[in-house]
Amino acid sequence: MRPSGRRPDQPREVTLTRGFTRHAEGSVLVSFGDTQVLCNASVEAGVPRWLRGKNQGWVTAEYGMLPRATHTRGGREAARGKQGGRTLEIQRLIGRSLRAAVDLKKLGEFTITVDCDVLQADGGTRTASITGACVALVEALQHMQRKKLIKSDPFRQLVSSISVGVYKNTPVLDLDYPEDSAADTDMNVVMTEDGKLIEVQGTAEAEAFSRAELNAMLDLAEGGCQTLFDKQREVLGVRR
Amino acid sequence: MRPSGRRPDQPREVTLTRGFTRHAEGSVLVSFGDTQVLCNASVEAGVPRWLRGKNQGWVTAEYGMLPRATHTRGGREAARGKQGGRTLEIQRLIGRSLRAAVDLKKLGEFTITVDCDVLQADGGTRTASITGACVALVEALQHMQRKKLIKSDPFRQLVSSISVGVYKNTPVLDLDYPEDSAADTDMNVVMTEDGKLIEVQGTAEAEAFSRAELNAMLDLAEGGCQTLFDKQREVLGVRR
Amino acid sequence: MRPSGRRPDQPREVTLTRGFTRHAEGSVLVSFGDTQVLCNASVEAGVPRWLRGKNQGWVTAEYGMLPRATHTRGGREAARGKQGGRTLEIQRLIGRSLRAAVDLKKLGEFTITVDCDVLQADGGTRTASITGACVALVEALQHMQRKKLIKSDPFRQLVSSISVGVYKNTPVLDLDYPEDSAADTDMNVVMTEDGKLIEVQGTAEAEAFSRAELNAMLDLAEGGCQTLFDKQREVLGVRR
Amino acid sequence: MRPSGRRPDQPREVTLTRGFTRHAEGSVLVSFGDTQVLCNASVEAGVPRWLRGKNQGWVTAEYGMLPRATHTRGGREAARGKQGGRTLEIQRLIGRSLRAAVDLKKLGEFTITVDCDVLQADGGTRTASITGACVALVEALQHMQRKKLIKSDPFRQLVSSISVGVYKNTPVLDLDYPEDSAADTDMNVVMTEDGKLIEVQGTAEAEAFSRAELNAMLDLAEGGCQTLFDKQREVLGVRR
Amino acid sequence: MRPSGRRPDQPREVTLTRGFTRHAEGSVLVSFGDTQVLCNASVEAGVPRWLRGKNQGWVTAEYGMLPRATHTRGGREAARGKQGGRTLEIQRLIGRSLRAAVDLKKLGEFTITVDCDVLQADGGTRTASITGACVALVEALQHMQRKKLIKSDPFRQLVSSISVGVYKNTPVLDLDYPEDSAADTDMNVVMTEDGKLIEVQGTAEAEAFSRAELNAMLDLAEGGCQTLFDKQREVLGVRR
Amino acid sequence: MRPSGRRPDQPREVTLTRGFTRHAEGSVLVSFGDTQVLCNASVEAGVPRWLRGKNQGWVTAEYGMLPRATHTRGGREAARGKQGGRTLEIQRLIGRSLRAAVDLKKLGEFTITVDCDVLQADGGTRTASITGACVALVEALQHMQRKKLIKSDPFRQLVSSISVGVYKNTPVLDLDYPEDSAADTDMNVVMTEDGKLIEVQGTAEAEAFSRAELNAMLDLAEGGCQTLFDKQREVLGVRR
Repeated sequence: MRPSGRRPDQPREVTLTRGFTRHAEGSVLVSFGDTQVLCNASVEAGVPRWLRGKNQGWVTAEYGMLPRATHTRGGREAARGKQGGRTLEIQRLIGRSLRAAVDLKKLGEFTITVDCDVLQADGGTRTASITGACVALVEALQHMQRKKLIKSDPFRQLVSSISVGVYKNTPVLDLDYPEDSAADTDMNVVMTEDGKLIEVQGTAEAEAFSRAELNAMLDLAEGGCQTLFDKQREVLGVRR
Repeated sequence: MRPSGRRPDQPREVTLTRGFTRHAEGSVLVSFGDTQVLCNASVEAGVPRWLRGKNQGWVTAEYGMLPRATHTRGGREAARGKQGGRTLEIQRLIGRSLRAAVDLKKLGEFTITVDCDVLQADGGTRTASITGACVALVEALQHMQRKKLIKSDPFRQLVSSISVGVYKNTPVLDLDYPEDSAADTDMNVVMTEDGKLIEVQGTAEAEAFSRAELNAMLDLAEGGCQTLFDKQREVLGVRR
Repeated sequence: MRPSGRRPDQPREVTLTRGFTRHAEGSVLVSFGDTQVLCNASVEAGVPRWLRGKNQGWVTAEYGMLPRATHTRGGREAARGKQGGRTLEIQRLIGRSLRAAVDLKKLGEFTITVDCDVLQADGGTRTASITGACVALVEALQHMQRKKLIKSDPFRQLVSSISVGVYKNTPVLDLDYPEDSAADTDMNVVMTEDGKLIEVQGTAEAEAFSRAELNAMLDLAEGGCQTLFDKQREVLGVRR
Repeated sequence: MRPSGRRPDQPREVTLTRGFTRHAEGSVLVSFGDTQVLCNASVEAGVPRWLRGKNQGWVTAEYGMLPRATHTRGGREAARGKQGGRTLEIQRLIGRSLRAAVDLKKLGEFTITVDCDVLQADGGTRTASITGACVALVEALQHMQRKKLIKSDPFRQLVSSISVGVYKNTPVLDLDYPEDSAADTDMNVVMTEDGKLIEVQGTAEAEAFSRAELNAMLDLAEGGCQTLFDKQREVLGVRR
Repeated sequence: MRPSGRRPDQPREVTLTRGFTRHAEGSVLVSFGDTQVLCNASVEAGVPRWLRGKNQGWVTAEYGMLPRATHTRGGREAARGKQGGRTLEIQRLIGRSLRAAVDLKKLGEFTITVDCDVLQADGGTRTASITGACVALVEALQHMQRKKLIKSDPFRQLVSSISVGVYKNTPVLDLDYPEDSAADTDMNVVMTEDGKLIEVQGTAEAEAFSRAELNAMLDLAEGGCQTLFDKQREVLGVRR
Repeated sequence: MRPSGRRPDQPREVTLTRGFTRHAEGSVLVSFGDTQVLCNASVEAGVPRWLRGKNQGWVTAEYGMLPRATHTRGGREAARGKQGGRTLEIQRLIGRSLRAAVDLKKLGEFTITVDCDVLQADGGTRTASITGACVALVEALQHMQRKKLIKSDPFRQLVSSISVGVYKNTPVLDLDYPEDSAADTDMNVVMTEDGKLIEVQGTAEAEAFSRAELNAMLDLAEGGCQTLFDKQREVLGVRR
């Protein structure tokens, strides 16, 4: 039924490659099938102006797509002179999600910026970004501990994210681009390891959706996120 | 328990004042308590470039806040030279929600832009905007029918929107600013008259939320939206 | 002779509604007939960089038009990424006019910004803005005195503003949009209560004007400003 | 009494050098004392979008200051990414003034843009710009006639401009920078050869001004503009 | 002598990985040691406005650096709202170099844009970009021939580029970042397969350089470019 | 053979007019034939943020073209809202070249900005700019010494610049616009008085060039720069 031949509850192949570039304090290439995002975490001393003197740190994200990550070339945002609404919306979502993974008080007056740059897009770039960025963030926190920049570990919990949707009247997990562009409903879910919700963003693209459909999608997302947590723990070498 | 003394399921006083300004094809001042938004719908011939020749219309929205709509003065976006991420995110949400109210095919090659400008803010500006903008949109469609610009009525259904959240561990409806800034979770819900969902955007501000809390919030939102539909139908003079 | 049926020396109905919004230190909705401008005065500690350490305050203004304040929708300046020349010219004029109402030395190191946002336009938005902004400015100064932010009253004098023009060879007062767009000459005058001039900006739109016409227009403006001062004093509860 | 030793009604030395650069259809270097402005008129086929098909031409102006035209270096507007309010205000004034010199119907579908770039500033850059730009505009119209681009002569009348002000309680003509920065009132006047007014822009910098002072300033401006018309006619080789 | 232990005439390890992403008509990951650049060539119908109707095509390039391609994080140009001077300079250089590889007449009215995005930087990003972009360009031309978009092959010749410099008084080939930041002179050379020069850009960073040093650097560049041509031909499967 | 009738090794008439405007610390009008550039050097206390506390000064340049410096009017960069790539590339080149003339350590914490504004263009604006800017820079250093702002003289050596190219298969010196737009190769060379190279920027516009052609062009440039040094020394009143 699905263009890819996957079962409704079957996510794409997920890989998390650590240390993908050498300069960043955390660097992960995440792939959800053909979607590939490079997530680089940078640690910088200091916090934004509005947080100064509050004795806490900050975690934020920036998001971008290489112009030819997509089927047809999109204009370069730097050349157009501004980031589009979709870009800003996604990077705000990634930032909020990552802050749920960290105790900002324990971070001290440091800012961690995670750059999520999409090398190749095939649907689900924001969910892949969150999932990969969380691993890069953990790498950066480990770097800070090794360098004695922080005393206690600010890490609280892993977060992961996956998309769900209603495609041809069936709830499905982890939509690729052909499904995404034809789905009635598209929802992105961000979760914690203990099954709680950080973000739920569901949009009726063509048809309004019912509470029953919402619940079926959330059930799928719960399963999908658990698979992602397994992957994250595996590459980080941690046990539950 | 609530700063305003309201019951958990009690929305603020809602008013929808039609014909608030005289030039727009639809003009509604909506208030949710102290939140006041002027929603002006403009009808213009033509559609955006990427829709030309597709024999359909377009509905979109723009959102702004007057600099002193808030407790302290915010910079004017026109002076800063760009719209912020929050603004772009909100106007994209309003536009998507309004498109669920209209059959774009029946609209013909016209664009309806609904400007939602916040005169005074006290929480819930995006939900008030959607609710008021939908009435202004209906006014604009009525104007088009009177002027014989369209043959058949493109109106499909009313949409309304309300916020819900978890405040001091209790699910509450229609958060005002004091609640919004202290809530653990904040969720905006956009619904159709028959109880289906157009948008669900839930964010854990401080604490992740459970499926049970999500369901309790959605129950509140359903009741709140029905109250809003009654108001919309009342000022539009239509029966269910 | 005039489209509105008014006598040449007859201004439109003027209203000044104090306390129109609740957050600003001064908030006035001014209407000159169908022209409606919301004037919000904000008090902020500090002065612009180039005034620091000079032991004085600053008064400035910003001006904007809601996109559908006019007959046809104008683009949103925030979306276009810059304020147009007309906007900048008007807000500079409002700011200069308001500074004539205040002793900046007595204001101390505070900045008062008056935002003039046009909700509905029918000609004369800059003159209505100045007239309403002056009342909002006085409200803000009163607020500062109540809050003991200043010791002595920086208020010097009221300022008001009205337009005059030559329409079909006749000097007329307070042009509305149909007159404004057809007038040979358009002049905006800002005055003090004792009949002196703060600003005179006369422009020959179609035909150059003579000294005699200039004088006839100034005579009309003097009378019009006295009517406005009466309104300002009335809503402020002060006597001449 | 005046810093320069001039009599109150004495303008600075004025020169108008034609053909200052070789590419422009009209090119004039104008100097009012130490203020030097290069005015280049460019003829281009076509009109702005909003004038297309209306069977008329357009005359407009752009204004700029070289960064070190002034006592201290000002930032380059191109580097700052926008033209300031003062720049936009001045170029709108120059454009309006020049359009009074031309019958746009006879110009046909051509646009003449006059660039006024200040090489050295000592007060009165906008009045010098208008006065020099008018000569460059006439040169460009002559070029169009020689090239048979137009059939009848669109030239209507010369325009010139000079500043007046109240300096140490005395009305004075053609203020230089030391006077301008200390004057109580500053007024720019644009006139036609037959003594009518195109623009009057008077601003009380420190003290409001009376009708009597306004009249004294206008008397000075009339005399000053006649001197400028003599200069313009002289370099253009035309008689009154 | 060199920080990397290389001989003066020894380039870094160079790899050219074809088909690195799947959407672009040409996609090459080029690495010069630790410098890694993703070069994606996109074919689009049409040419820029100024080339329309001239019966020829266009080849251009855009260049960007991921924010954390470098040792410390650089601001994202899209977020700053403009491309910096260095970026614009480099992408103009890449575009000019690539146009030497193609007969634009034979290309027809198509535009090929090669995006060069630096994933990791260690000196020489512009020379790596040109060398990799040329291979992506050839891939795109092959794609056009397979799709019958062009009749004859527009390919003229390979171009490649390498940096040379004077480091500690010794001419060296292919500077990495530690050498680049300490070199007296830095020169980028772009060549054709038959040993001619497309671009020579030499800059004295600390000390002016002599004709003899220039010649020694050019000798090194010639050898380096031949090595690069061998690599390009190898991955493209062509013989000299 | 050359459009101007010059011999291949013959530069255009060069003039350097000192003190062209009165406010700048150094002000030179340079002309290379019909190319005229106004070079104003401004001395300001302080250095850019990234140089603070390093006990050295900074020399930089900005470049602009008046809109009608060219055959047809170019858009004003300030109005377009950004400086183009060509502008940024040229001003970076001028700045680098000028820094070779000065010992930044001896300059102290001052910034000298040289504005190079092209009044009239006929090819070679960047080489004329560098040659004239160097004289303005020396004037500014002399001003600083007279004002006792610096103790020792930071001047190291004169720099000058000239273009060379291959025009109709012949190497020629100092290309004017007709040659520049038709040349196969265009190269800009910046030199020191002792014959060393600061910058070499050669570009094959139509045909790749050989090492022999490069050498022939450099020979011409050496001679041309010596002529320019003679002119610079003459107007500065210094001997070799």
